[in-house]
Amino acid sequence: MKEFELINRYFKGRGITRRDVNLGIGDDCALVTVPQNCQLAVTTDTLVAGVHFFDDISPRALGHRALAVNLSDLAAMGAEPTWVSVGLTLPSIDQKWIEEFTEGMHEIAEYFNVQIIGGDTTQGPLTITICAKGTVPEGTALRRSGAKVGDWIYVTGPLGDAGLAIESRKQGISIEPEHLKYLNKRFDFPTPRVAAGQVLRGLASSAIDVSDGLLADLSHILDMSQVNASVNIQSIPTSDAMRSSLEFKHQLPFILNYGDDYELLFTVPDSNKSMLEMKLRQYGVDATCIGQIKSGDGQIELLHNGEKFDFEQQGFEHFAKEPV
Amino acid sequence: MKEFELINRYFKGRGITRRDVNLGIGDDCALVTVPQNCQLAVTTDTLVAGVHFFDDISPRALGHRALAVNLSDLAAMGAEPTWVSVGLTLPSIDQKWIEEFTEGMHEIAEYFNVQIIGGDTTQGPLTITICAKGTVPEGTALRRSGAKVGDWIYVTGPLGDAGLAIESRKQGISIEPEHLKYLNKRFDFPTPRVAAGQVLRGLASSAIDVSDGLLADLSHILDMSQVNASVNIQSIPTSDAMRSSLEFKHQLPFILNYGDDYELLFTVPDSNKSMLEMKLRQYGVDATCIGQIKSGDGQIELLHNGEKFDFEQQGFEHFAKEPV
Repeated sequence: MKEFELINRYFKGRGITRRDVNLGIGDDCALVTVPQNCQLAVTTDTLVAGVHFFDDISPRALGHRALAVNLSDLAAMGAEPTWVSVGLTLPSIDQKWIEEFTEGMHEIAEYFNVQIIGGDTTQGPLTITICAKGTVPEGTALRRSGAKVGDWIYVTGPLGDAGLAIESRKQGISIEPEHLKYLNKRFDFPTPRVAAGQVLRGLASSAIDVSDGLLADLSHILDMSQVNASVNIQSIPTSDAMRSSLEFKHQLPFILNYGDDYELLFTVPDSNKSMLEMKLRQYGVDATCIGQIKSGDGQIELLHNGEKFDFEQQGFEHFAKEPV
Repeated sequence: MKEFELINRYFKGRGITRRDVNLGIGDDCALVTVPQNCQLAVTTDTLVAGVHFFDDISPRALGHRALAVNLSDLAAMGAEPTWVSVGLTLPSIDQKWIEEFTEGMHEIAEYFNVQIIGGDTTQGPLTITICAKGTVPEGTALRRSGAKVGDWIYVTGPLGDAGLAIESRKQGISIEPEHLKYLNKRFDFPTPRVAAGQVLRGLASSAIDVSDGLLADLSHILDMSQVNASVNIQSIPTSDAMRSSLEFKHQLPFILNYGDDYELLFTVPDSNKSMLEMKLRQYGVDATCIGQIKSGDGQIELLHNGEKFDFEQQGFEHFAKEPV
């Protein structure tokens, strides 16, 4: 199969068609129209076989995941995802594999009303680089740098599930089948918190998605905002699967250090807290207050029963950590 | 070296700063502003070690080339390049290599006033996927689909040089040192025809860049426009290096089938021909008329001394051809 056939069969004419796409797949460039008074938000994420996913990951999950991690970055800016470009490097043409991979990608793209407007398909070691674009009304994007002393710290959902899914495979942690199914779904089919991100516009003072781990990602907000944080570790939401599978002290590395959950972590000024909670309920978005911003230069204080709690901070570093 | 340090040292704060970049490297997304009444043009190209370049390519050339091939797609749409996202997968941290690679990339980015607004740096087999963005006034983009019967076919510069550079290494073709130096520069440091593309707005009826080979890329125009073409092979511009190194008949595979030259191939209605040639002279852009569009359904007729000339058409196909 030649490159043109591959693109025609699995990408062109598949998926949704947005009215703001003036020219899609098939020319030197795609052409799109950004609405007036909106900024364009752009993010890029690469997934490499053996580094970001197991070789035995289902192609459908991989197609989903490759797009989800990019949409999560758009969510963290409060942007509406619109268009993506897909750089796909494949070791060989396995039509069944490509069919399932693109199916997984088209499914999540359609769910979030995102159009695949172009890309490049090449031969080589399995690597996926997606560049996702979105739009956000001028001046409403959520940055990492806006957290202020006194702001409340929130997270949208349970943390640590994806990490527990990974480590249960590597370390053979014993987990009940129904919980394991849930955890694997959390790792394989992460849900970018796109609606949550848009609800936060104009209310949150900063936001980031939890891809590297709670402490690592919170540190990014603190470093950019030049503040400290105090976090009540008992307030951090966890899943039934997590609580049933591990004792509290063994949960902590997953909750605090592991990433890949793609929940949103954000801060809200006290004056916006009740409005935010009302809007979250209105849009059916879960979020839990886990702490507060303090003055300082980027440190995190962990509290347990109101007492200081010592815990070594780590995060997911490419070039530093063992591949998953 | 951790990922954040790498990005900070080699990307953040390096290169030019455009006023339309509202937020550059360092948050979940970059934020940019597309001018009113302009469309956004988007393209993605991946380069894989061992497939798109020799393993011994100089890192500076690779950095240049990775960006150049993307800017060439923007040029072929008549777009003004503005912002790029860089997905860089590296087998290891070799600081000297990265320094030279990013130097090559920043050089060409600065030359074309392009800002690197983000990306992702991961560990794995050497692969570079760039997503380049540009802007083009509404309705003026050059598509592949606009060629009409009677339009003249032009190409911006000599063809076959990059191919001759590659094959001289592989096949040991004997080439004089000064010519070899020129040919290697054509392959290693291709010049995207950005100015030419912008001159063509409103004058050319279709355009494409020659990345897969003259016949293959012309076929894309013909297929999309539903027309035929007649090409005088003696009119196709070639370099001194090409003419001095090979007999005419041995030049043909390079001129007609080899890609990687990144010249622009375009068509112009007869009514715009004199205006176009005037503007090309005014902006110092070389372009040569090599044939004319005929009625038909996508065939190319080659002429030599006014006689039909048979030549088998091939093009650069990932998944079909030996890696370079």
